[in-house]
Amino acid sequence: MVVSIELKSPSVIKYDITIDALADMCFDRKVAIVTNPTVSSLHLDTLLAKITATQCEVVTIPDGEEFKTLATVEAILSELFEAKFDRKSLLIAFGGGVIGDMTGFTASLYQRGIDFIQIPTTLLSQVDASVGGKTGVNNKYGKNLIGAFYQPKAVHIDPYFLTTLPPREFAAGVAEVVKMAVMFDNDFLEYMERNELYDEAVTKEMIRRSVTLKADIVNQDEKEAGIRAVLNYGHTFGHVIENETSYSKYLHGEAVAIGMVMANALAVKLGLMSVDDAGRVLNILQNNGLPTNYEIKNVDEFYDHFFLDKKSNSGKIKFILPNGALGTNIILDDIDEKIVKEVLGQFGVGE
Amino acid sequence: MVVSIELKSPSVIKYDITIDALADMCFDRKVAIVTNPTVSSLHLDTLLAKITATQCEVVTIPDGEEFKTLATVEAILSELFEAKFDRKSLLIAFGGGVIGDMTGFTASLYQRGIDFIQIPTTLLSQVDASVGGKTGVNNKYGKNLIGAFYQPKAVHIDPYFLTTLPPREFAAGVAEVVKMAVMFDNDFLEYMERNELYDEAVTKEMIRRSVTLKADIVNQDEKEAGIRAVLNYGHTFGHVIENETSYSKYLHGEAVAIGMVMANALAVKLGLMSVDDAGRVLNILQNNGLPTNYEIKNVDEFYDHFFLDKKSNSGKIKFILPNGALGTNIILDDIDEKIVKEVLGQFGVGE
Repeated sequence: MVVSIELKSPSVIKYDITIDALADMCFDRKVAIVTNPTVSSLHLDTLLAKITATQCEVVTIPDGEEFKTLATVEAILSELFEAKFDRKSLLIAFGGGVIGDMTGFTASLYQRGIDFIQIPTTLLSQVDASVGGKTGVNNKYGKNLIGAFYQPKAVHIDPYFLTTLPPREFAAGVAEVVKMAVMFDNDFLEYMERNELYDEAVTKEMIRRSVTLKADIVNQDEKEAGIRAVLNYGHTFGHVIENETSYSKYLHGEAVAIGMVMANALAVKLGLMSVDDAGRVLNILQNNGLPTNYEIKNVDEFYDHFFLDKKSNSGKIKFILPNGALGTNIILDDIDEKIVKEVLGQFGVGE
Repeated sequence: MVVSIELKSPSVIKYDITIDALADMCFDRKVAIVTNPTVSSLHLDTLLAKITATQCEVVTIPDGEEFKTLATVEAILSELFEAKFDRKSLLIAFGGGVIGDMTGFTASLYQRGIDFIQIPTTLLSQVDASVGGKTGVNNKYGKNLIGAFYQPKAVHIDPYFLTTLPPREFAAGVAEVVKMAVMFDNDFLEYMERNELYDEAVTKEMIRRSVTLKADIVNQDEKEAGIRAVLNYGHTFGHVIENETSYSKYLHGEAVAIGMVMANALAVKLGLMSVDDAGRVLNILQNNGLPTNYEIKNVDEFYDHFFLDKKSNSGKIKFILPNGALGTNIILDDIDEKIVKEVLGQFGVGE
């Protein structure tokens, strides 16, 4: 049975998001599937068997965050020009977040914008990245610093692809789901605590609830002028951890897991969160095999790295925290430096 | 006196377009002026004297269409990253169409989009390019093939900058104004026939009427799904002429002038235009020093080149023509190849 997402106010996300086994797709136009060797070797045949199109190209790009660059986007664009794609042509992002972000960005640029659809194959991209229209690439100054807000025409989420996903990557996806539940929906958090997330029906329900939450937030605030920033809970700290470890030690979701633990410690310190609630979040992360501690070698340096974040406008750091109970949130940009550093100190050497 | 443009239905163009001497501008954020050496040497001091900002950078890029590339955009982006621009920062496009298109495109990309304003300094960019949100760059496959639809936050048109514009470039701007009048407004065409366009008050009125027409069309059809395509009158032919002459012999507006004469010949052939009306358009172009003839060496090759245009979806060529009277228009994509080639033959060797 197809699970379709029902949205409160579909102002930005006007497209279908379905959660089910991939249906047959018939396109009266040229189509290019953008994917990487890993996904391609596992699932490309499955996808190709579903697609009929005027012409179907497969563009394979190298696997990994280090190839999420403008140079790769240019290479994809060149293949589209060589294949004489026109304004009616369609791109299909077939892979995880990196593939989705780059395919969407390429679609936004080609002849000032052509259609694209998302077929995400990782839990992280299924629950989060494939919905919302943030596209882009990294450069030497940081992550996702060049890009566009550009919405797909449809998102097809097939949980079957998760059967080949390494457990560590599954867990990294769970971190983003926990983030959503802690910020917006305590019922959902309890559901995740009660159930085995690997169970097929539970996975599907978890995806449905995550995507519904995410889409409702994007509909309220596409460009992240307000509430969408709440989705960066755990990310303020997580980005610094990723940066300090050169994006090699932790998966993004793992860094976010640690980041949430740090944010919670700050919230406890400020009296915004009970020790019990912080413990509940810690438990669900640990129970799903996620890291929850990080040795901060130099608190001052760690603090300075907050300012590298593109969201730190005009020298203020935005902290996104639980606000008195699980399922609620607050954004604070005036927390005393001394308090933040005291909390960071808890994660220092010897912890 | 500031002339403000009044629009019928400001759905896309919600920003101010003013036609007047530049006012003082005070920005509580970082600002970068993007310009080229020609404009900079003539007018940068004038502009700088008007601007107060938290920080004001000047990014100078080489002058000319051949530098309208992704590499130049990357160079601008790097300067912004080095200067630690954030999401609240502002770009100012200060120059002609190339500067405007690239500055807008850069603004659309930087951290997924920052504000920019247009201060166009050529007649072409004042009457046409600075309004409408088409941004982008060329590549080896053609012109404007990579880009974004991205609207400025304001357009300030100061006719004073035209005092240093070479007459040939002034004429190239007039060609785009004639295009607008022939397609949409016979009264406006008569006004242009009656008046000396170099006269200061006439220039200002010509800009006002052009921009109003252009903005109303963009408001009806930002993404060029329908009526906006009418603005390509003269361009179907003009693009081939530019391409055949390697973008070096004619200014864009000059190629469009010849293109309009060719389109009119086709319209006359199809009974959509009287010989008298075609003569009126020919006269106003010639009276303003614009070229109106082009020697087509090989009709078949010229015809094949139509298909290089990014607007020729699915193998059909869109011809935009007057439709029975000046100030009216029609788009036809099913004109018999033989008829088109007969008309092209009129512009062949020996003409």
